Amino acid sequence: MSTQSKAILASAPNYPDHSPGSNWSLENISVPNDLKDGELLVDMLASGICHTDLISTGVPGGTPGFPYPYVAGHEGSGYVKAVGPGVKKDIKVGDPVLLSFAHCGQCESCEQRHPAYCSAFFPLNIYPVEDVFKAEDDSGVAGKFFGQSSFAKLSVVKESSVLVVRDLVTDKEELKLFAPLGCGIQTGAGATLNVAKPEERDRVMILGVGGVGLSALMAAKMLGCEQIIAVDRVKSRLELAKSLGATHSIDTTGVEDLTATFKEITGGRGPTVVIDTSAYVPLMKAAYNSLAARGTFVFVGANLDPAFNMELGITQHMMNGTRLLGCAEGDSLPEEFIPQLIKYQREGKFQLDKISKFYKAEDFKNALHDMHTGEAIKPILTW
Amino acid sequence: MSTQSKAILASAPNYPDHSPGSNWSLENISVPNDLKDGELLVDMLASGICHTDLISTGVPGGTPGFPYPYVAGHEGSGYVKAVGPGVKKDIKVGDPVLLSFAHCGQCESCEQRHPAYCSAFFPLNIYPVEDVFKAEDDSGVAGKFFGQSSFAKLSVVKESSVLVVRDLVTDKEELKLFAPLGCGIQTGAGATLNVAKPEERDRVMILGVGGVGLSALMAAKMLGCEQIIAVDRVKSRLELAKSLGATHSIDTTGVEDLTATFKEITGGRGPTVVIDTSAYVPLMKAAYNSLAARGTFVFVGANLDPAFNMELGITQHMMNGTRLLGCAEGDSLPEEFIPQLIKYQREGKFQLDKISKFYKAEDFKNALHDMHTGEAIKPILTW
Repeated sequence: MSTQSKAILASAPNYPDHSPGSNWSLENISVPNDLKDGELLVDMLASGICHTDLISTGVPGGTPGFPYPYVAGHEGSGYVKAVGPGVKKDIKVGDPVLLSFAHCGQCESCEQRHPAYCSAFFPLNIYPVEDVFKAEDDSGVAGKFFGQSSFAKLSVVKESSVLVVRDLVTDKEELKLFAPLGCGIQTGAGATLNVAKPEERDRVMILGVGGVGLSALMAAKMLGCEQIIAVDRVKSRLELAKSLGATHSIDTTGVEDLTATFKEITGGRGPTVVIDTSAYVPLMKAAYNSLAARGTFVFVGANLDPAFNMELGITQHMMNGTRLLGCAEGDSLPEEFIPQLIKYQREGKFQLDKISKFYKAEDFKNALHDMHTGEAIKPILTW
Repeated sequence: MSTQSKAILASAPNYPDHSPGSNWSLENISVPNDLKDGELLVDMLASGICHTDLISTGVPGGTPGFPYPYVAGHEGSGYVKAVGPGVKKDIKVGDPVLLSFAHCGQCESCEQRHPAYCSAFFPLNIYPVEDVFKAEDDSGVAGKFFGQSSFAKLSVVKESSVLVVRDLVTDKEELKLFAPLGCGIQTGAGATLNVAKPEERDRVMILGVGGVGLSALMAAKMLGCEQIIAVDRVKSRLELAKSLGATHSIDTTGVEDLTATFKEITGGRGPTVVIDTSAYVPLMKAAYNSLAARGTFVFVGANLDPAFNMELGITQHMMNGTRLLGCAEGDSLPEEFIPQLIKYQREGKFQLDKISKFYKAEDFKNALHDMHTGEAIKPILTW
């Protein structure tokens, strides 16, 4: 038994001509009705597009763990259509849900309420599971990307990815707007609130002000940080950053000595907190070298370059008392952090509406185009 | 006006035959009686020898900032012999004092009570000041190393290095024993208590169990950490570590896969805290790669190798939620932390007596020899 539906399928990228998302296509699929233990069927309402979707579907074909074609998408929201056996959470058919990353619930990190560092994070989130869906020719299509594959109109979702929001979300419009909370928004906001934890006196610099960077920025604004410096090379993004609370902005286009620029804008003292969402090593190094004593640098941005490395001078790191913190998913506990973020949005402390732009799912190519040019910060596909 | 005294002078090292401390010699010097603003004369009773003395006096002759000959030593204790103009602390002639690093008191780090990251740390501590003393032939001898140059029997000391302990220390024996609190001991103890801040459930691994490493270890023992793993290649040090609270020890001699060994001893999960005092990059990398999720790695060890670097895989650091923390002087506020450590020693929580060995100042070569072989963990020279 299966149900007909639609999904954006990613086929193996065709290097060297591959541009991000050029291997995506909207296709008819069928979704099984016989759910496995701990699974649900979710009728998707919306799904944010996140850079991780582009990075993951840019992995070369044949790479172990990436069984093309597969359905990406990991910022879904929708309504529960069926509840499989063994589901322990209080979930009923018809419940509105926001989806986040999957986690095992049993490892040391999960037990300590830090599921973003689940020991099974890669198999549960990054590596799609084979044969979840069927293509029109009945061949298998992989799914359960981040436990959800939210680029399918109807999808099989793992219980651990589900947050029931029947008491939190008032209507369909909200459920669409909040779709990206489960990844991009919580990643940025969490980088600030859960990881860097700046105080009012801090000088916070954010490298890259896309959806993640702006979420980090809105959190810093909420904390009342003395300086909030947005760094990007897209003018429109920097303008938006200022409207959301950046006290300063730096357009890196043509800047020769970035370290000196970062020092100068902070009165010679350097930023006390740098949150990188750019994944661009020369920019990261320049910012690292500008850090104030006891400064904090947070790694948030990712890319696929096998040489995505940073060489540290140990003596400099030691004598400066630098703190270099890795940060996945904002170290969020989604069941607590997402409701908190919804509260901030209602209080006007977050302005998710200002960074979101909606597209019909079939117009995903426009969404990708606008994401690339900076016209859309956080594109949200609606089904 | 000046007073005759003695000091261990470091002359410019004679590469390539130089071995650490081979350029030290006990000499007659004269010490000026006319003090400058904010200076004191201290009659040294004792001074610990720290690796930083060896590293700093191993800097090649002609290097800017290192005007040979100079008097090293920066773990001094003694009695105030004269108080110069403009001294603001409540210090009287005859007061017993413990000496620590110097700091400016005015920069952002000093104002925020983190003087170990004083913006003038290098000029105030690492670079000796010319012409503080005179040699027998009346040529200048540099001093005020760490604001104290405690390898002189009588020395010129900067006020910011001075902690008056007239209400804290009961007798001369204590004043000798506590001499290294101002650097090595507070560095190790602070790496644990002020920087890594482990909890009971943590698995703490300490790379190198010399004076700094064992101080870090005693602090972890005091906090009741579940596992405390001492790593070294000197058997006698590992034995001592066990007697001071290590739950496990690893002799790295001949171990082929250190990362696997570190994983194994922690039940496959990896240490949650690594404190490096070894400054040996292959060991550091192996330990870094063994870290548990959200693990903390603290840089404490230093060396002079210009390629003292560590290359991080950014994605690994991010996805593991690793925290890499620089740590100088244990991020100590000496005026508060040293009294705290003295309290721990009195309560039996620290056992400084077990790691200390006393030598007459003229026997410094024996002290260096024993430090090298591991026979002495923390040699203390007495005048």
